[in-house]
Amino acid sequence: MLHPDRLFPADLATRELARKLFAEVETLAIVSPHGHTDPRWWGENPHFSNPADLFVVPDHYVLRMLISQGVSYEALGIGEGREKDPRKIWRTFAEHFHLFQGTPSRLWVDHALSEVFGLSERLSPKNADAYYDRIAECLAKPDFRPRELHDRFNIEVIATTDGALDDLHWHQQVLDSDWSGRVVPTYRPDAVIDPEADGFTDSLDKLGELTGCDTGTWQGYLDAHRARRAFFRRMGATATDHGHPSPRTANLSDTQAAALFDRVRSGRLRDDDADLFRAQMLTEMARMSAEDGMVMQLHPGSWRSHSAAVHAAYGRDKGFDIPVRVNFTEGLKPLLDAVGMAPELTLILFTLDETTYSRELAPLAGAYPGLKLGPPWWFHDSYEGIRRFREMATETAGFYNTVGFNDDTRALCSIPARHDVSRRVDSAFLAELVVTHRLDEEEALELAPLLANGLAKAGYRL
Amino acid sequence: MLHPDRLFPADLATRELARKLFAEVETLAIVSPHGHTDPRWWGENPHFSNPADLFVVPDHYVLRMLISQGVSYEALGIGEGREKDPRKIWRTFAEHFHLFQGTPSRLWVDHALSEVFGLSERLSPKNADAYYDRIAECLAKPDFRPRELHDRFNIEVIATTDGALDDLHWHQQVLDSDWSGRVVPTYRPDAVIDPEADGFTDSLDKLGELTGCDTGTWQGYLDAHRARRAFFRRMGATATDHGHPSPRTANLSDTQAAALFDRVRSGRLRDDDADLFRAQMLTEMARMSAEDGMVMQLHPGSWRSHSAAVHAAYGRDKGFDIPVRVNFTEGLKPLLDAVGMAPELTLILFTLDETTYSRELAPLAGAYPGLKLGPPWWFHDSYEGIRRFREMATETAGFYNTVGFNDDTRALCSIPARHDVSRRVDSAFLAELVVTHRLDEEEALELAPLLANGLAKAGYRL
Amino acid sequence: MLHPDRLFPADLATRELARKLFAEVETLAIVSPHGHTDPRWWGENPHFSNPADLFVVPDHYVLRMLISQGVSYEALGIGEGREKDPRKIWRTFAEHFHLFQGTPSRLWVDHALSEVFGLSERLSPKNADAYYDRIAECLAKPDFRPRELHDRFNIEVIATTDGALDDLHWHQQVLDSDWSGRVVPTYRPDAVIDPEADGFTDSLDKLGELTGCDTGTWQGYLDAHRARRAFFRRMGATATDHGHPSPRTANLSDTQAAALFDRVRSGRLRDDDADLFRAQMLTEMARMSAEDGMVMQLHPGSWRSHSAAVHAAYGRDKGFDIPVRVNFTEGLKPLLDAVGMAPELTLILFTLDETTYSRELAPLAGAYPGLKLGPPWWFHDSYEGIRRFREMATETAGFYNTVGFNDDTRALCSIPARHDVSRRVDSAFLAELVVTHRLDEEEALELAPLLANGLAKAGYRL
Repeated sequence: MLHPDRLFPADLATRELARKLFAEVETLAIVSPHGHTDPRWWGENPHFSNPADLFVVPDHYVLRMLISQGVSYEALGIGEGREKDPRKIWRTFAEHFHLFQGTPSRLWVDHALSEVFGLSERLSPKNADAYYDRIAECLAKPDFRPRELHDRFNIEVIATTDGALDDLHWHQQVLDSDWSGRVVPTYRPDAVIDPEADGFTDSLDKLGELTGCDTGTWQGYLDAHRARRAFFRRMGATATDHGHPSPRTANLSDTQAAALFDRVRSGRLRDDDADLFRAQMLTEMARMSAEDGMVMQLHPGSWRSHSAAVHAAYGRDKGFDIPVRVNFTEGLKPLLDAVGMAPELTLILFTLDETTYSRELAPLAGAYPGLKLGPPWWFHDSYEGIRRFREMATETAGFYNTVGFNDDTRALCSIPARHDVSRRVDSAFLAELVVTHRLDEEEALELAPLLANGLAKAGYRL
Repeated sequence: MLHPDRLFPADLATRELARKLFAEVETLAIVSPHGHTDPRWWGENPHFSNPADLFVVPDHYVLRMLISQGVSYEALGIGEGREKDPRKIWRTFAEHFHLFQGTPSRLWVDHALSEVFGLSERLSPKNADAYYDRIAECLAKPDFRPRELHDRFNIEVIATTDGALDDLHWHQQVLDSDWSGRVVPTYRPDAVIDPEADGFTDSLDKLGELTGCDTGTWQGYLDAHRARRAFFRRMGATATDHGHPSPRTANLSDTQAAALFDRVRSGRLRDDDADLFRAQMLTEMARMSAEDGMVMQLHPGSWRSHSAAVHAAYGRDKGFDIPVRVNFTEGLKPLLDAVGMAPELTLILFTLDETTYSRELAPLAGAYPGLKLGPPWWFHDSYEGIRRFREMATETAGFYNTVGFNDDTRALCSIPARHDVSRRVDSAFLAELVVTHRLDEEEALELAPLLANGLAKAGYRL
Repeated sequence: MLHPDRLFPADLATRELARKLFAEVETLAIVSPHGHTDPRWWGENPHFSNPADLFVVPDHYVLRMLISQGVSYEALGIGEGREKDPRKIWRTFAEHFHLFQGTPSRLWVDHALSEVFGLSERLSPKNADAYYDRIAECLAKPDFRPRELHDRFNIEVIATTDGALDDLHWHQQVLDSDWSGRVVPTYRPDAVIDPEADGFTDSLDKLGELTGCDTGTWQGYLDAHRARRAFFRRMGATATDHGHPSPRTANLSDTQAAALFDRVRSGRLRDDDADLFRAQMLTEMARMSAEDGMVMQLHPGSWRSHSAAVHAAYGRDKGFDIPVRVNFTEGLKPLLDAVGMAPELTLILFTLDETTYSRELAPLAGAYPGLKLGPPWWFHDSYEGIRRFREMATETAGFYNTVGFNDDTRALCSIPARHDVSRRVDSAFLAELVVTHRLDEEEALELAPLLANGLAKAGYRL
């Protein structure tokens, strides 16, 4: 099911070199500086419940593809009247597994079935039941709990993503344990930054309570952020993360910002206030990063829960987040004019709009010292996606303005698979540079481990 | 002139596999669910008049390239004072045939000359006269009439595109004949939907007369569409088609929509009314499709007749339609919120803005059950265009959210050529997936005929 | 350091053919119709001062990459308190030379060191001092002065870029000399067209003085342009060049244009006036080109000096020009409606927004006789950039609506390197067309020299 030469170039000389480069990085430790695994896993180390809950129900890549071909959410264990038998959900997945042909999900599932569960044939309706039994059997064993998988996957450090109000008790539980795994939180304050987030006002009240700061005032609110960032740092965090509809930033005067905050805080928003506040807060977060050294990440341009009907019936993260066009050159200017040349700032940019790679992101990261390019994100974390990123970004930004790979996933078993894909495609890319004499083989051998995990460690200050 | 390995990958192992896959689909019947052949051809089965009228004068790809290099429309038989001698037009074409190097038109003409007319050398000034004679001689024979070519091309079914007011008498003539060819109409109501179309008000009057509905009212107007759609279905149609400046949709309340219609009907349009009405009508058409099962096609983003001077002097479809940027994620939301999850809806999306493949179209089609991706359109119906489509769409949408190929042409002799190109490039793409171990050979062998005509038949309910 | 097969395809059969095609063009004379070499070099033929001033300080590609990785402008010899020792600047460059891995700058520097200075190893901290000495030694010799390098580089003709107010005395000095090199100016009137340019009003006064035209009136201002264009033509110019924020054009009535000019001239600009005036002037320039036959070039879409801080401290052209999205289809319409079909017009379009290649530029140039496509510009003058251009533009525009390559550089020693890259990548592209049977080998052999310099000579009327 997993060919040793998968994702390597067809041309034999190039393939030979890709193999050689990949051999240098295949077994390097996984550095996972941006992801969405459940902190409870690391704190409690529970058993996973069943194959459907591991592979199907929480995976929005899988859900959306099945939904797109007429499967119901209910049949996938979601919503009112949902299927309760995980085996039946698993069978539905197996029956439709051909839909994933040519997609990264197929590579990830193949890899997990093979490498994590030792299964040698591709999932199909024929083997669905036997595979269900085999995986369920594994999941009951201690070796298949999160911490044991973490160690087996050779993860050196993994970051979770955590709300500003989170008490990080699962992280504390890891720190208090005798387990040696390094799990660090990431400060993701969207819920206390986005005036349109559910329960925004209550969240700000709670932010005040947690920090002892007066979140009724602009300065108190900023101080509360500083306090929470410091708490996160004490708990091991080195980074923040921001999911915004667009990369728009603003740099208002203190007076203007305070007045805007007053309107936002009191719920008396004018037309553009919500977006303007988000824009202003990106600049504030960048300012704090330039002070406290936390690496800032920006993930803009996803229209969350595009289908009103799906959102109403089944909630968020159900596969209906759709990318939109973004404008980094214009959007980031206020932030960059404020702190773009500050020596301590690192702002890592992600995009779902691949047209920005060569037009905006590589030129920006190839000039501003504070900017780095995150790896291909979400829909583009794939063979073709990674190739396009390297082909479109490298000539202008070089390799050293990128920060290696991150898996960005809540699907634990896909982590080794995703790093495997990334390392293979990068090896192939480097091999092509060498074969076309744009790089020496010796240079490629030095770059390969940097792309595999070195730039991630350095870029995220891990 | 036609190498048996054309369009196959350079790498020999990949080429070998592409050959094998292509061999499976090369002779499969042509399914042509979206095209622009003249219904009269099928009804009357006339002889084509001459080589220039077959290959040059009506082909906007050919016209624009010659115009772009300084040839006049008049020399191509168009406009006041036009050249009347088709042989001279043909010679002009031959003299400039090198301009098409590297373009799909060149592949199509080569293919037609070789496969339809048995000519073995490429068109050139040297052979222009002899070729003219040979083709003219052929065209005089019964075997080169439309129905005979149709049968020789192994066309299983072909769709034409027809205005809402069309009486479809040529289609009736086919049905009444003893010819076994299947020619189906497509409901293309742009002229009775676009308030800026020439003669819009008269067209609505005529629509009322034809259907007995009161097209002076919003509900009567919608009923008239329903009636015409039913008529088209009785005549074999399975699909509708909509050419709009943008993918904007709207979902007004009944009251708002009725008020908008009143303004549109009476010619008292406010600023945005024309575009808003088009937007609203896309949602209405989608609603009707969800009811009556007609597959809906949307072709947005062409700025028709960009040159005012060319339009004034020579009319429409003269090669000056220029693509513009489009926004599907935002534009389609009202329609999708209205009927995007309706089980009966199929809406096939086309684009001239390739940036939307990976950013918008594949994520949308990879989620909404009602959405499918049409093949690369117009400028992108080509070797590079089809490759880019597969590379940019497959990883997110998979294969099963696409609907195979359609030739989209009024140039009868190019139909086999276009399907040949598509089948070759898809075979090459599948071969690359296999050689890079992203797909098993056995899977590729199953997918190849689906891409060649299976998905088209299923997607268009033919 | 320079492999003879660099930039050729990995596949051996394709590589073999690329070699053959490249052999046909490798030694052809360089035609450089658009560049930024200093006219003083050609007039005075001075010695270059030192390696840092030749390779580092004036090269914005080099500057921005070093800045992006934390090197200061001061360390690169720029700004208050700057490093004065060129050897130390050179060492800084050498220490960071690995940053350029995978970028075109690396190829250009390698090429210049090897081919111009006879150095056989790549620049590194180890050889930095020895290389500095060797290059400095060369620069002291007569053979390494501009005119001697020009002749050695086999430059047939080279264009400089010159302000509308320039007296072109360096060009006169060339004409008056016994040197046979052909150096032509290019009319670049941005400073007297852009109301937001520094010293705009004074420049218009000076334009009036130079020409004897009354630049206080719209007609006098236009006449002044006509006069300067005529002067440039007398000095050998065949082209104009226009750097605008966007491709927006306008075609106001004479009355409107005169009123706009009055506001612009008197500094009483309304909101949109500056941009509207630039837009109007593109149409005026196109009209003049249609009259006087000067080839017009448009370079839109660069946000100049994006960082306010860098601009304030270090000035223009310091590596912080960032591309933005552009819209040619909409922007150019007024100009094209005015003169797009005029037989004498040639308007060459450049872009930093690669999405416009297939969506807008190729369709426009593949229709309007007055439009041609310039080569990949700036960030895209590279292996991947040229490949993408050919792949995205050729199928719609063909080869004959392009104008070959131009090096667009102020870095004299990179000129042969850039033409070498372009000829290699074009040879590779043509070879791929032949190997995939989209072109005959004989056709490729005819096209290769056209792409190398033939289309440039014809397109620029040189």
